[in-house]
Amino acid sequence: MSLVIVGSVAFDSIETPRRRVERVLGGSAVYASMAACYQTPVRLIGVAGEDFTSEYIDLIKMENIDITGLEIVEEGKTFFWSGRYGDNPNERETVVTELNVFENFRPALPGGWEKSEWLFLANIDPELQLDLLNQFKGEPFVGCDTMNFWIEGKPGVLSKVLQRVNLLFINDSEARELSRETDLIRAARTILKMGPDIVVVKKGEHGAFMMTEDFLFISPAYPVENLLDPTGAGDSFAGGVFGFLASNGDINEKNLRRSMIYGTVLASFTCEDFSVGSIRNINLDMIKERFNRIVDYVKIDKEET
Amino acid sequence: MSLVIVGSVAFDSIETPRRRVERVLGGSAVYASMAACYQTPVRLIGVAGEDFTSEYIDLIKMENIDITGLEIVEEGKTFFWSGRYGDNPNERETVVTELNVFENFRPALPGGWEKSEWLFLANIDPELQLDLLNQFKGEPFVGCDTMNFWIEGKPGVLSKVLQRVNLLFINDSEARELSRETDLIRAARTILKMGPDIVVVKKGEHGAFMMTEDFLFISPAYPVENLLDPTGAGDSFAGGVFGFLASNGDINEKNLRRSMIYGTVLASFTCEDFSVGSIRNINLDMIKERFNRIVDYVKIDKEET
Repeated sequence: MSLVIVGSVAFDSIETPRRRVERVLGGSAVYASMAACYQTPVRLIGVAGEDFTSEYIDLIKMENIDITGLEIVEEGKTFFWSGRYGDNPNERETVVTELNVFENFRPALPGGWEKSEWLFLANIDPELQLDLLNQFKGEPFVGCDTMNFWIEGKPGVLSKVLQRVNLLFINDSEARELSRETDLIRAARTILKMGPDIVVVKKGEHGAFMMTEDFLFISPAYPVENLLDPTGAGDSFAGGVFGFLASNGDINEKNLRRSMIYGTVLASFTCEDFSVGSIRNINLDMIKERFNRIVDYVKIDKEET
Repeated sequence: MSLVIVGSVAFDSIETPRRRVERVLGGSAVYASMAACYQTPVRLIGVAGEDFTSEYIDLIKMENIDITGLEIVEEGKTFFWSGRYGDNPNERETVVTELNVFENFRPALPGGWEKSEWLFLANIDPELQLDLLNQFKGEPFVGCDTMNFWIEGKPGVLSKVLQRVNLLFINDSEARELSRETDLIRAARTILKMGPDIVVVKKGEHGAFMMTEDFLFISPAYPVENLLDPTGAGDSFAGGVFGFLASNGDINEKNLRRSMIYGTVLASFTCEDFSVGSIRNINLDMIKERFNRIVDYVKIDKEET
């Protein structure tokens, strides 16, 4: 089933201990869409500037990604982000953020997309997330990502969004900030009371866990040996989760657990190259192979009591 | 089968964000022995001073722990450690270390213990570890823990010890330092070449993984909600692993995986109280209950390919 993804489309300049790249394709909507498209058709909504040339458009336009919802603003400049990683890939420093065309972006749902059953609101201003949500007819299954910037800056709107979200993705430090709990399990439990039925706490290289009222599922990170650039890993994780859920269609414990491993696998590919170098060039067999490897890494049976 | 454990016996003064305690029972041999004794008879080797009164001896002397090898030095003072934890339980600051009787300690294997089949060398000077190892007749299955202090200060002796160790426990930062690799999977692989057949990398609240030539097993930490004091968690982890292995007797992949979960569970109990308050007061049923809960938390089946 079709999955609508709204988020940023960006140029990223990234410096890591090993290498640096300038103005490569990035953005939360891009990573999430590419991760999801291996399992389900994706409808991307975003904005870019005139500098977003056909070379970049060709990169985004994969077989399963419909970019009708990608607005190109004449004489506008594409959102630009520049960041630096040290030895710890979980910590990064933002050097420059230029909103550009993103500043006046108002996401518009193209005709015919209003009844899409799956929606992932990648990390953007919660006002835009709410705006897009209100353009839907019907009740899509809604996923959402956010960040410290909105938790601190727009807690009221964010709270309204959370009340309409089914599945929230949040990283460890954001979960602590949003819940005001130090312990992550308590944090997740507190966040569940804010609206979402399902909370996924992402811990970077330490994996992730999913919590609902009914179960807790813990996933390790896939052990990536040639980590080049973790930019987009969190967005790819969410895309992997939603791509699988939308393709399967059935939200139950077994599928939610499976979706976590798909998210983990897609995130691992993204880390292995700059920009979309890796995640754009894989296939479902490669994804499933890593999935099954993770199952091997965690395999354990119950003890008799 | 009997498991010999050598390590420190200590008084600890600990400050956490929630509370502080003064001169409570601690030490690597104490935590490891208590964790192991629920599954196998333990033979403890250590040293304490005259200030180690009957009250403390009664605490150590559990049903399954033989303290014949605990030397009490007349007029000596027990090893003292004092530390402070901040909000991140993985990071601690040592405030005071007083070696006291530990300074001139030479571990002696009591008569009749020379043919014990299981030996865990908790974190002490590698010269003492080697010394004790040389007192064995036969070939015990040897586990070992170490720390940055010895990796930096006595690399030569430590290297000799590693060549005779079957299973090395090491935490993440120590693994990076010993291997000179940033990536933990590479670090573990490098350490396997230094002697051990099995390496367990402990990552505190982020769990642990075990690597051999044949398999990789990743375990989450047990989600402790009332973490009071992580002191001794690593020693309890190792004790839990060795207690199970020694009780079962058979070193194979299945048992090694199971041992990791036992280690994880024993470490979780230690974190829930200061000193041995929690780990001294549990039973095998409680341990197995947590074991099976972890199995639920990670349960996932392979995908069809």
